[in-house]
Amino acid sequence: MSSIIRHSSRLGIRTANFVPPRGRNAYATAAPYFNNEPSQPSVMTSIPGPVSRKAIEELDPVFDIRSLNMPCDYEKSVGNYLADMDGNMLLDVLVMHCIELKSVWFFLINTANREFLYWLRYAQIASIPVGYNNPRLAAAMSSKEAVNALVNRPALGNFPPGYWASLLKTGILAVAPKGLNQVFTAMAGSDAIETSYKAAFIYRRRMERGEGADFTPREIESVMKNQAPGSPKLAIMSFRKAFHGRLFGSLSTTRSKPIHKLDIPSFDWPQASFPQLRYPLEDNIEANREEEEKCLAEVESLISSWHCPIAAIVVEPIQSEGGDNHASPTFFRGLREVTQKKGVLLIVDEVQTGVGATGKFWAHEHWDLQTPPDMVTFSKKAQTAGYYFGNPLLRPNLPYRQFNTWMGDPVRAILFRAIIQEISKHDLVKNTAETGDYLYKELEKLASKFPERIQNLRGKDRGTFIAFDTPRRDAFLKKMKTCGVNIGGSGETAVRLRPMLIFQKHHASILLEKLELALKEI
Amino acid sequence: MSSIIRHSSRLGIRTANFVPPRGRNAYATAAPYFNNEPSQPSVMTSIPGPVSRKAIEELDPVFDIRSLNMPCDYEKSVGNYLADMDGNMLLDVLVMHCIELKSVWFFLINTANREFLYWLRYAQIASIPVGYNNPRLAAAMSSKEAVNALVNRPALGNFPPGYWASLLKTGILAVAPKGLNQVFTAMAGSDAIETSYKAAFIYRRRMERGEGADFTPREIESVMKNQAPGSPKLAIMSFRKAFHGRLFGSLSTTRSKPIHKLDIPSFDWPQASFPQLRYPLEDNIEANREEEEKCLAEVESLISSWHCPIAAIVVEPIQSEGGDNHASPTFFRGLREVTQKKGVLLIVDEVQTGVGATGKFWAHEHWDLQTPPDMVTFSKKAQTAGYYFGNPLLRPNLPYRQFNTWMGDPVRAILFRAIIQEISKHDLVKNTAETGDYLYKELEKLASKFPERIQNLRGKDRGTFIAFDTPRRDAFLKKMKTCGVNIGGSGETAVRLRPMLIFQKHHASILLEKLELALKEI
Repeated sequence: MSSIIRHSSRLGIRTANFVPPRGRNAYATAAPYFNNEPSQPSVMTSIPGPVSRKAIEELDPVFDIRSLNMPCDYEKSVGNYLADMDGNMLLDVLVMHCIELKSVWFFLINTANREFLYWLRYAQIASIPVGYNNPRLAAAMSSKEAVNALVNRPALGNFPPGYWASLLKTGILAVAPKGLNQVFTAMAGSDAIETSYKAAFIYRRRMERGEGADFTPREIESVMKNQAPGSPKLAIMSFRKAFHGRLFGSLSTTRSKPIHKLDIPSFDWPQASFPQLRYPLEDNIEANREEEEKCLAEVESLISSWHCPIAAIVVEPIQSEGGDNHASPTFFRGLREVTQKKGVLLIVDEVQTGVGATGKFWAHEHWDLQTPPDMVTFSKKAQTAGYYFGNPLLRPNLPYRQFNTWMGDPVRAILFRAIIQEISKHDLVKNTAETGDYLYKELEKLASKFPERIQNLRGKDRGTFIAFDTPRRDAFLKKMKTCGVNIGGSGETAVRLRPMLIFQKHHASILLEKLELALKEI
Repeated sequence: MSSIIRHSSRLGIRTANFVPPRGRNAYATAAPYFNNEPSQPSVMTSIPGPVSRKAIEELDPVFDIRSLNMPCDYEKSVGNYLADMDGNMLLDVLVMHCIELKSVWFFLINTANREFLYWLRYAQIASIPVGYNNPRLAAAMSSKEAVNALVNRPALGNFPPGYWASLLKTGILAVAPKGLNQVFTAMAGSDAIETSYKAAFIYRRRMERGEGADFTPREIESVMKNQAPGSPKLAIMSFRKAFHGRLFGSLSTTRSKPIHKLDIPSFDWPQASFPQLRYPLEDNIEANREEEEKCLAEVESLISSWHCPIAAIVVEPIQSEGGDNHASPTFFRGLREVTQKKGVLLIVDEVQTGVGATGKFWAHEHWDLQTPPDMVTFSKKAQTAGYYFGNPLLRPNLPYRQFNTWMGDPVRAILFRAIIQEISKHDLVKNTAETGDYLYKELEKLASKFPERIQNLRGKDRGTFIAFDTPRRDAFLKKMKTCGVNIGGSGETAVRLRPMLIFQKHHASILLEKLELALKEI
């Protein structure tokens, strides 16, 4: 057992016994997953406090600190609670980022408050799945196997460790989406996405060329000059407000905010409109159906009319960075149909939605597809990255076409296996579904109490992947901060929730209490 | 102390006492860094042997194995010796990859032997710096700090651990190239390169726009459609035969082999000729001077004539994947002058050359530049990745322009710090310089003995970064394999050496012995 596990009882915070929060209406008091968590957030200093300020000053000369929220004490953090350097313990549902704006910030141009930018970075940008200092994870990372994988990092494409197949099967592939039994491992979301695009392009040309056909001398000669036909004009289609990463190929499909893209050369690839649904859904059935049909028609028309062939369409099950935009299962089934009809691959980007957050392990399981997506990308809560696929022809016809030195990281694959075991042991996907239902219903009540302040509540039946709009969003966020809960915005008016999978009803109650307080006061 | 360190004495291999290899001429018998290494490679089965074959069969259905060399036993590997699953112990100077060619393999088109492709993957593609199961590294990775960083992986741009500044200063920045005191951390070579390109584009537009100028509404509107002026036509120039990575931006600058690039859309960016020097250098001074001047003139002319502005030039100190192509310090000083004169940034890609392999910590230290490069990228032997820079204006004018979820990995930064300490403690850069000198001199002798079989010997005064051409390269590689040493090729006719930093003279002697044997027999 690692020193980290043992020392958790020595944490200098008020943890000893779990005390359910007072107030708020009753809820089922399920046993807490972390019984050494504090019972409430506690903020004893301004944030950042004096110790944090000193750490920031030290960091500034060598590292860009303008995106910094706060330096953290990860030894003292536990479960849903993130500790800062000054001993403050924050419920890490939603952490807000606050930057003084020295220049215009574009996606806030139309909002009233231009003084501060509130920015959402919860649970390490939704990448911590099963709590800080989770003992099962600490045990896995202290194991001989993990230390060995760190010290002797293999080039997985050439020299995998002997246990690689077994690790894949008991880890990454044990939770593979239905119909997708193969994986290409990567290191983070952006390279998972970009390698899936490469797979799509290679596949497209393979189909066009015909099985077994060799590259032509003209292709071989032109590709070294970055010219067609060797480097063909082909495109990936994405949706307005999508976010798929920040490297050159992925950034060309990211459409959430200008600031991510300005000054960076990009590929001339198309974007289709993503449905803009009206809420509540039950009151806008016909309008939403029409909206989704319009978007699907646009997709189909763009495939036919774009100046070059579309090799794949990439889509998030819920547009996250773009403001928590949802579409119905019908829309996604329609998208699958269009792509199949047109011979275009469908890549479902589950980097943010995957690994349980929506109340299913993969968000696209909510759609009930007849045939699986061609590729599904993952990262964040998986703590490793890559893409799943099922069609063996998506393996390039020759080796070394899709290759790099490390091709992922076995220690992170070991960590994902431990995460999967922890999720399974505690039935955490179910917990997320149930906590989400509770939270959504309570938010519905709040919305009917404050109809001008909670609008477009969304995320029903999508676990804790819940968001709403608030027209005076920035004033609201400010107020929440003074209430001791950090909460964050996305898009232009959205407030979104992204707790970990171990976020339980008693945590939700704390959040709801603070929310109501803030809503009353603004 | 970790179990790995303790169990190294229980390794089931003939290690107990170091026995200097017999034969070959005398050399200074420095104390071995690993006294539990075997004294000789040992191959008891065919490679892959029966256990390995079984592991490969198990892996095939779920993972692309066509680039696979062999599954390894990293528990039994030690120092310079890599163990396979069948108990074979290979001196991991140079491991050869052998694939049956079922299709034409383009860069071998002009060679005699098309039956097999021998491919170089030594020391995990030159990424293992200080030996398998290095005890100092195992201790660092078993530490409380490392386990904590693994379990609670921070989003470094938002929530760095409190020790991040200190870790940077005692690790990554402690070995920063002269004049470059800042770092942007990444996860692997490709994203290190791509983020450095993004920095170059953002910087370029900042200079063009003028300090403090805002983005125009037209830029903001056009960028969301991937169009100029928001997404401008700007280029990165690279050199023929360069290798800089495999994602969309980096691949657009990679020019080593068609197979890396075919079917992948790319940016219309220019390539300049890299000097093709004649050997031996001392007999071709004038011709080489002319060749380098011609290349510099081409660079200058391309900057002026390309259809869009060049934001940066990226160059490897020694072109590695392209066949170990060298240029003189005079050439690189000239390149620095041209870039400064033309207002183009210079990015030195030290992903393969960095961290000691050339007998200096950074290969560009050999050039004696008057002003440092604008950015230097690193990965591989650093076991983490990123780019160094010095000019504070290379930090974008606003946060979140250069950002991603993880922005590197603290546990790998901890590992790099341990690597730096190990290098320093044993003076391993000096060892590499000295072993390299010895190896180079002995190879010179072999070259004069077999002038038709060792040609264009290169890498003098560049540590163990040594290569030569052999016209019957593939037959030679085959022969070496039967001699029990795996050695690899690069480019079309090159054989190149890439040992770890702990490769000592007694290891070099084993290699030289086998080389001579093979040269005699082909």
